[in-house]
Amino acid sequence: MTEFVMRPIARVESSLRERTDAPRQGDEGAPDAWIVFDDSVRAALADIAAGDEVILITWFDRADRDVQKVHPRGDTSRPATGVFSTRSPDRPNPLGLHRVTVLAVDDLRVQVNNLEALDGTPIVDVKPVLGDISDR
Amino acid sequence: MTEFVMRPIARVESSLRERTDAPRQGDEGAPDAWIVFDDSVRAALADIAAGDEVILITWFDRADRDVQKVHPRGDTSRPATGVFSTRSPDRPNPLGLHRVTVLAVDDLRVQVNNLEALDGTPIVDVKPVLGDISDR
Repeated sequence: MTEFVMRPIARVESSLRERTDAPRQGDEGAPDAWIVFDDSVRAALADIAAGDEVILITWFDRADRDVQKVHPRGDTSRPATGVFSTRSPDRPNPLGLHRVTVLAVDDLRVQVNNLEALDGTPIVDVKPVLGDISDR
Repeated sequence: MTEFVMRPIARVESSLRERTDAPRQGDEGAPDAWIVFDDSVRAALADIAAGDEVILITWFDRADRDVQKVHPRGDTSRPATGVFSTRSPDRPNPLGLHRVTVLAVDDLRVQVNNLEALDGTPIVDVKPVLGDISDR
Protein backbone atom coordinates (compact mmCIF):
# COMPACT_ATOMS: atom_id res chain seq x y z
CA MET A 1 0.00 0.00 0.00
CA THR A 2 1.04 3.58 -0.55
CA GLU A 3 2.52 5.40 2.42
CA PHE A 4 2.25 9.09 3.27
CA VAL A 5 4.99 11.19 4.80
CA MET A 6 4.11 13.94 7.28
CA ARG A 7 6.43 16.64 8.48
CA PRO A 8 5.80 18.23 11.89
CA ILE A 9 4.78 21.88 11.68
CA ALA A 10 5.21 22.63 15.41
CA ARG A 11 6.04 21.15 18.82
CA VAL A 12 4.27 21.27 22.18
CA GLU A 13 5.93 22.97 25.14
CA SER A 14 4.15 21.70 28.25
CA SER A 15 4.70 20.86 31.91
CA LEU A 16 3.40 17.34 31.12
CA ARG A 17 6.44 15.09 30.71
CA GLU A 18 5.17 11.49 30.97
CA ARG A 19 2.09 9.61 29.85
CA THR A 20 1.25 8.89 33.48
CA ASP A 21 1.09 12.66 34.15
CA ALA A 22 -1.42 13.37 31.38
CA PRO A 23 -5.17 13.48 31.90
CA ARG A 24 -7.17 11.25 29.55
CA GLN A 25 -8.68 14.20 27.68
CA GLY A 26 -7.99 17.92 27.52
CA ASP A 27 -11.20 18.85 29.34
CA GLU A 28 -10.23 16.68 32.31
CA GLY A 29 -7.74 19.04 33.92
CA ALA A 30 -5.02 19.52 31.32
CA PRO A 31 -2.75 22.58 31.66
CA ASP A 32 -2.20 25.51 29.33
CA ALA A 33 0.67 24.92 26.90
CA TRP A 34 2.67 26.70 24.20
CA ILE A 35 2.84 25.52 20.59
CA VAL A 36 6.09 26.50 18.87
CA PHE A 37 5.71 26.62 15.08
CA ASP A 38 8.39 26.08 12.48
CA ASP A 39 9.37 29.17 10.53
CA SER A 40 8.54 27.32 7.29
CA VAL A 41 4.76 27.54 8.04
CA ARG A 42 4.69 31.22 9.05
CA ALA A 43 2.26 32.16 6.24
CA ALA A 44 -0.16 29.34 7.08
CA LEU A 45 -0.20 30.53 10.73
CA ALA A 46 -0.64 34.23 9.94
CA ASP A 47 -4.37 34.52 10.72
CA ILE A 48 -4.44 32.60 14.02
CA ALA A 49 -5.38 35.00 16.83
CA ALA A 50 -6.25 34.98 20.53
CA GLY A 51 -9.81 33.76 21.03
CA ASP A 52 -9.80 31.34 18.07
CA GLU A 53 -11.15 27.87 18.74
CA VAL A 54 -9.03 25.38 16.86
CA ILE A 55 -8.39 21.66 16.53
CA LEU A 56 -4.75 20.66 16.89
CA ILE A 57 -3.79 17.38 15.27
CA THR A 58 -0.83 15.76 17.01
CA TRP A 59 1.33 12.74 16.26
CA PHE A 60 1.68 10.63 19.43
CA ASP A 61 5.33 9.84 18.89
CA ARG A 62 5.48 7.60 21.97
CA ALA A 63 2.52 5.40 20.93
CA ASP A 64 2.54 1.67 20.15
CA ARG A 65 1.25 1.36 16.56
CA ASP A 66 0.73 -2.42 16.77
CA VAL A 67 -2.03 -2.18 19.39
CA GLN A 68 -5.53 -2.77 17.96
CA LYS A 69 -7.53 -3.46 21.15
CA VAL A 70 -7.42 -1.67 24.52
CA HIS A 71 -9.38 -1.54 27.75
CA PRO A 72 -11.07 1.89 27.60
CA ARG A 73 -9.42 4.41 29.92
CA GLY A 74 -7.07 1.63 31.09
CA ASP A 75 -9.92 0.06 33.12
CA THR A 76 -9.45 -3.72 32.88
CA SER A 77 -13.00 -4.28 34.16
CA ARG A 78 -14.16 -2.93 30.79
CA PRO A 79 -13.91 -5.30 27.81
CA ALA A 80 -11.05 -4.96 25.33
CA THR A 81 -12.32 -2.67 22.58
CA GLY A 82 -11.14 -2.01 19.02
CA VAL A 83 -9.04 1.17 19.07
CA PHE A 84 -11.16 2.85 16.34
CA SER A 85 -13.91 2.98 19.00
CA THR A 86 -11.57 4.62 21.55
CA ARG A 87 -9.31 7.66 21.86
CA SER A 88 -6.30 5.53 22.83
CA PRO A 89 -3.02 7.02 21.61
CA ASP A 90 -1.95 3.45 20.77
CA ARG A 91 -3.37 2.86 17.24
CA PRO A 92 -2.12 2.17 13.69
CA ASN A 93 -1.66 5.88 12.82
CA PRO A 94 -1.24 7.60 16.20
CA LEU A 95 -2.98 10.89 15.44
CA GLY A 96 -4.50 12.92 18.26
CA LEU A 97 -7.31 15.50 18.09
CA HIS A 98 -7.30 18.35 20.61
CA ARG A 99 -9.91 21.08 20.69
CA VAL A 100 -8.39 24.16 22.33
CA THR A 101 -8.80 27.91 22.56
CA VAL A 102 -5.93 30.19 21.55
CA LEU A 103 -4.96 32.36 24.55
CA ALA A 104 -2.09 34.36 23.04
CA VAL A 105 0.08 34.61 19.93
CA ASP A 106 3.72 35.76 20.06
CA ASP A 107 5.23 35.48 16.56
CA LEU A 108 5.69 31.71 16.01
CA ARG A 109 4.58 30.80 19.56
CA VAL A 110 0.90 30.19 20.30
CA GLN A 111 -0.48 29.63 23.82
CA VAL A 112 -3.53 27.34 24.17
CA ASN A 113 -5.62 26.05 27.05
CA ASN A 114 -6.45 22.48 28.17
CA LEU A 115 -3.88 20.53 26.17
CA GLU A 116 -3.24 16.96 27.37
CA ALA A 117 -0.37 16.32 24.89
CA LEU A 118 3.09 15.74 26.36
CA ASP A 119 6.04 18.11 26.13
CA GLY A 120 7.75 17.69 22.77
CA THR A 121 4.75 16.14 21.00
CA PRO A 122 4.77 17.02 17.29
CA ILE A 123 1.84 18.91 15.79
CA VAL A 124 0.98 18.07 12.19
CA ASP A 125 -2.04 20.30 11.47
CA VAL A 126 -4.25 23.09 12.88
CA LYS A 127 -7.84 23.64 11.76
CA PRO A 128 -10.62 25.99 12.82
CA VAL A 129 -13.61 24.58 14.68
CA LEU A 130 -16.49 24.90 12.19
CA GLY A 131 -19.38 27.08 13.26
CA ASP A 132 -22.77 27.31 11.62
CA ILE A 133 -22.88 26.97 7.83
CA SER A 134 -23.86 30.65 7.52
CA ASP A 135 -20.63 31.73 9.26
CA ARG A 136 -18.19 29.86 7.00
CA MET B 1 13.10 17.54 11.08
CA THR B 2 11.80 14.06 11.77
CA GLU B 3 9.19 12.71 9.36
CA PHE B 4 6.31 10.35 10.14
CA VAL B 5 5.04 7.63 7.86
CA MET B 6 1.33 6.84 7.75
CA ARG B 7 -0.23 3.83 6.14
CA PRO B 8 -3.84 4.04 4.91
CA ILE B 9 -6.23 1.82 6.87
CA ALA B 10 -9.15 2.14 4.44
CA ARG B 11 -10.37 3.81 1.22
CA VAL B 12 -13.51 5.78 0.40
CA GLU B 13 -15.98 4.41 -2.17
CA SER B 14 -18.12 7.35 -3.27
CA SER B 15 -20.00 8.76 -6.23
CA LEU B 16 -17.86 11.94 -5.86
CA ARG B 17 -15.07 11.70 -8.45
CA GLU B 18 -13.64 15.23 -8.82
CA ARG B 19 -12.92 18.14 -6.47
CA THR B 20 -15.41 20.25 -8.42
CA ASP B 21 -18.17 17.72 -7.58
CA ALA B 22 -17.59 17.81 -3.84
CA PRO B 23 -19.46 20.11 -1.44
CA ARG B 24 -17.25 22.25 0.78
CA GLN B 25 -18.25 20.37 3.96
CA GLY B 26 -20.06 17.12 4.67
CA ASP B 27 -23.12 18.87 6.08
CA GLU B 28 -23.60 20.83 2.86
CA GLY B 29 -25.18 18.07 0.78
CA ALA B 30 -22.54 15.31 0.65
CA PRO B 31 -23.72 11.80 -0.25
CA ASP B 32 -23.57 8.57 1.71
CA ALA B 33 -20.40 6.58 1.05
CA TRP B 34 -18.77 3.26 1.88
CA ILE B 35 -15.45 2.94 3.70
CA VAL B 36 -13.55 -0.23 2.77
CA PHE B 37 -11.08 -1.24 5.48
CA ASP B 38 -7.88 -3.19 5.08
CA ASP B 39 -7.95 -6.68 6.55
CA SER B 40 -4.86 -5.79 8.63
CA VAL B 41 -6.98 -3.50 10.90
CA ARG B 42 -9.88 -5.92 11.42
CA ALA B 43 -9.38 -6.04 15.21
CA ALA B 44 -9.26 -2.24 15.56
CA LEU B 45 -12.55 -2.00 13.63
CA ALA B 46 -14.35 -4.75 15.57
CA ASP B 47 -16.51 -2.53 17.81
CA ILE B 48 -17.75 -0.06 15.18
CA ALA B 49 -21.53 -0.45 14.80
CA ALA B 50 -24.48 1.20 13.07
CA GLY B 51 -25.48 4.37 14.90
CA ASP B 52 -21.95 5.26 16.04
CA GLU B 53 -20.90 8.88 15.53
CA VAL B 54 -17.28 8.92 14.46
CA ILE B 55 -14.61 11.23 13.08
CA LEU B 56 -12.87 9.93 9.97
CA ILE B 57 -9.41 11.33 9.32
CA THR B 58 -8.55 11.33 5.61
CA TRP B 59 -5.41 12.10 3.64
CA PHE B 60 -6.29 14.43 0.74
CA ASP B 61 -4.04 12.70 -1.76
CA ARG B 62 -4.85 15.25 -4.50
CA ALA B 63 -3.94 18.31 -2.38
CA ASP B 64 -1.19 20.85 -3.03
CA ARG B 65 1.05 20.77 0.06
CA ASP B 66 2.92 23.96 -0.84
CA VAL B 67 -0.15 26.19 -0.45
CA GLN B 68 -0.11 28.27 2.75
CA LYS B 69 -2.75 30.95 1.96
CA VAL B 70 -6.15 30.56 0.26
CA HIS B 71 -9.28 32.59 -0.37
CA PRO B 72 -11.84 30.98 1.98
CA ARG B 73 -14.33 28.82 0.07
CA GLY B 74 -12.62 29.88 -3.18
CA ASP B 75 -14.22 33.34 -2.93
CA THR B 76 -11.64 35.81 -4.26
CA SER B 77 -13.57 38.71 -2.72
CA ARG B 78 -12.44 37.38 0.69
CA PRO B 79 -8.83 38.10 1.69
CA ALA B 80 -6.18 35.39 1.33
CA THR B 81 -6.07 33.60 4.69
CA GLY B 82 -3.47 31.33 6.31
CA VAL B 83 -4.58 27.72 5.75
CA PHE B 84 -4.45 26.89 9.49
CA SER B 85 -7.46 29.23 9.80
CA THR B 86 -9.34 27.38 7.01
CA ARG B 87 -10.47 23.87 6.13
CA SER B 88 -8.76 23.99 2.72
CA PRO B 89 -7.49 20.55 1.62
CA ASP B 90 -4.39 22.35 0.31
CA ARG B 91 -2.10 22.58 3.38
CA PRO B 92 1.32 21.26 4.55
CA ASN B 93 -0.07 17.97 5.89
CA PRO B 94 -3.34 17.46 3.96
CA LEU B 95 -5.40 15.77 6.68
CA GLY B 96 -9.20 16.00 6.59
CA LEU B 97 -11.67 15.66 9.47
CA HIS B 98 -15.14 14.30 8.69
CA ARG B 99 -17.79 13.82 11.34
CA VAL B 100 -20.19 11.11 10.14
CA THR B 101 -22.73 8.61 11.44
CA VAL B 102 -22.27 4.90 10.73
CA LEU B 103 -25.29 3.62 8.79
CA ALA B 104 -24.30 -0.03 8.32
CA VAL B 105 -21.39 -2.44 8.83
CA ASP B 106 -20.76 -5.41 6.51
CA ASP B 107 -17.53 -7.16 7.57
CA LEU B 108 -14.74 -4.76 6.45
CA ARG B 109 -17.17 -2.36 4.70
CA VAL B 110 -18.73 0.50 6.67
CA GLN B 111 -21.42 2.79 5.26
CA VAL B 112 -21.52 6.42 6.50
CA ASN B 113 -23.60 9.49 5.75
CA ASN B 114 -22.62 12.99 4.55
CA LEU B 115 -19.05 12.34 3.41
CA GLU B 116 -17.55 14.99 1.12
CA ALA B 117 -14.32 13.02 0.47
CA LEU B 118 -13.68 11.88 -3.11
CA ASP B 119 -13.79 8.29 -4.33
CA GLY B 120 -10.49 6.58 -3.54
CA THR B 121 -9.48 8.98 -0.77
CA PRO B 122 -7.34 7.17 1.84
CA ILE B 123 -8.52 7.04 5.46
CA VAL B 124 -5.79 7.08 8.10
CA ASP B 125 -7.77 6.97 11.38
CA VAL B 126 -11.24 6.60 12.90
CA LYS B 127 -12.16 7.97 16.34
CA PRO B 128 -15.37 8.17 18.35
CA VAL B 129 -17.00 11.55 18.87
CA LEU B 130 -16.53 12.26 22.58
CA GLY B 131 -19.70 12.66 24.64
CA ASP B 132 -19.95 13.99 28.16
CA ILE B 133 -17.11 13.18 30.53
CA SER B 134 -19.43 10.89 32.53
CA ASP B 135 -20.05 8.71 29.47
CA ARG B 136 -16.40 7.98 28.60
